[in-house]
Amino acid sequence: MPQITGRTALVAHLGFPTESFKAPMIYNPWFAARGIDAVVVPMGVRAEDYPAFLPLVFRLSNICGALVTMPHKVTTVGLVDHVTPTAAIAGAANAVRVEADGRLTADQFDGEGFVRGVLRKGQPIEGRRALVVGCGGVGSAIAASLARAGVAELALHDPNTAGMEGLAGRLAQHYPALRLVLGHKDPAGFDVVVNATPLGMQPGDPLPMEVDRIDPAAFVGEVVMKSEMTPFLRAAAARGCRYQVGTDMLFEMIPAYLEFFGFPTATADELRQTAQIAY
Amino acid sequence: MPQITGRTALVAHLGFPTESFKAPMIYNPWFAARGIDAVVVPMGVRAEDYPAFLPLVFRLSNICGALVTMPHKVTTVGLVDHVTPTAAIAGAANAVRVEADGRLTADQFDGEGFVRGVLRKGQPIEGRRALVVGCGGVGSAIAASLARAGVAELALHDPNTAGMEGLAGRLAQHYPALRLVLGHKDPAGFDVVVNATPLGMQPGDPLPMEVDRIDPAAFVGEVVMKSEMTPFLRAAAARGCRYQVGTDMLFEMIPAYLEFFGFPTATADELRQTAQIAY
Repeated sequence: MPQITGRTALVAHLGFPTESFKAPMIYNPWFAARGIDAVVVPMGVRAEDYPAFLPLVFRLSNICGALVTMPHKVTTVGLVDHVTPTAAIAGAANAVRVEADGRLTADQFDGEGFVRGVLRKGQPIEGRRALVVGCGGVGSAIAASLARAGVAELALHDPNTAGMEGLAGRLAQHYPALRLVLGHKDPAGFDVVVNATPLGMQPGDPLPMEVDRIDPAAFVGEVVMKSEMTPFLRAAAARGCRYQVGTDMLFEMIPAYLEFFGFPTATADELRQTAQIAY
Repeated sequence: MPQITGRTALVAHLGFPTESFKAPMIYNPWFAARGIDAVVVPMGVRAEDYPAFLPLVFRLSNICGALVTMPHKVTTVGLVDHVTPTAAIAGAANAVRVEADGRLTADQFDGEGFVRGVLRKGQPIEGRRALVVGCGGVGSAIAASLARAGVAELALHDPNTAGMEGLAGRLAQHYPALRLVLGHKDPAGFDVVVNATPLGMQPGDPLPMEVDRIDPAAFVGEVVMKSEMTPFLRAAAARGCRYQVGTDMLFEMIPAYLEFFGFPTATADELRQTAQIAY
């Protein structure tokens, strides 16, 4: 890594606890490789301090943005001046920047990373049918980004009915032409099928849906990063489906963050090459 | 530099503006050379934000201390739970740490750096007579540390009489046995003679005192860092005086900071060797 100086642009990485943060080991080696004078700095902000800390950290003269992670993604939406539609639909933000006038803008790139990865692998989204199983934080973000990318139909499933219906309401408000199907997890007939549940993290987890109902021509996405090939992905791949692993979403979202903060862009592959962590 | 991770200890470097900060380029290469997982991060805090920011930055779970610089050195004294006598006398602090119970302690190492350098060059201080010309921030800190190191007599000079008298009052309160002489800048008869004025920063500045009145056996110290050998030091050296250059104070104070924050210690020479800035 190059030296940090008083001219280095700070990207605050806000969350708690910080021990498992991965972004510093992805961004910082890439900044170094590209000769960009910026640094991602983990800041272990507890939930009770965050509402006061967020505006103050953005008053720093050398800050250029913040990566926001647990437990602050939801709170952030209520603490900034402007929220993008994607973050508003997801009900959570993972990036904040300060505008020239001092106002804070929050956006959400979890789903954007998912969508960019799918598109880059050659699977069109616009006008297609997508199923998202799991409407928690990451599922909501993926649903918001699939809507933004122009899916014609979006089926959602989550045992938390209230959460799923809230998400659907926000989607309907921002994308009135989108066909929404609720409480549906049969993957038959969908072009893009997403596991956005944590199933696959623990040994012995059941599969998140009936994989043998997935169309072999469908594209399958996974959010679990515990291993590259989860049992769900292995089963889908065995049916002949094309797929995207969990960490693809992670690396694909970083170019979106870089653009949001005003840095030069990169490809997910470049970022994987310079990253100093094993997945 | 090694990677910054979520386990890396943060040392916040608080001041504004940050562009001229030197500490990151001194501490960070040394941390790297010693395999210490810590990083100094400049944070450009404006004066109006500092009272709110200081306690919050110390709530971060990965913070281990703060280096405090302009314009916050004086304010800090009123914002922490405990101030050491040296910082109280100097009326300014340049280091803050958080104790196990969450309370903040502030200390002041400008003068400590000066004193450590003088002692390491073989000049005793205890029981000796010292003259400090200039009782601004750095002069006050040096006076406080000379008192702590046991000078028998301390002469002070500053055209700002109120500032000088305030300093003398605080010295008298903490060191009742110390002989204080005010408004005196004739160096004759002093064992340690210090220029703590900015004279020497600009070409054509007058000398801060009558150098030909300095005892050739005296030890002469300088705070100006614009060049290693200021006109004042050159004149004193020509008389045969031993001396300490301005940046010695800077490097000698860093071991004191390291100890205060709980890091392994270092010598000023080790720190000079790893530092990645030219002076």
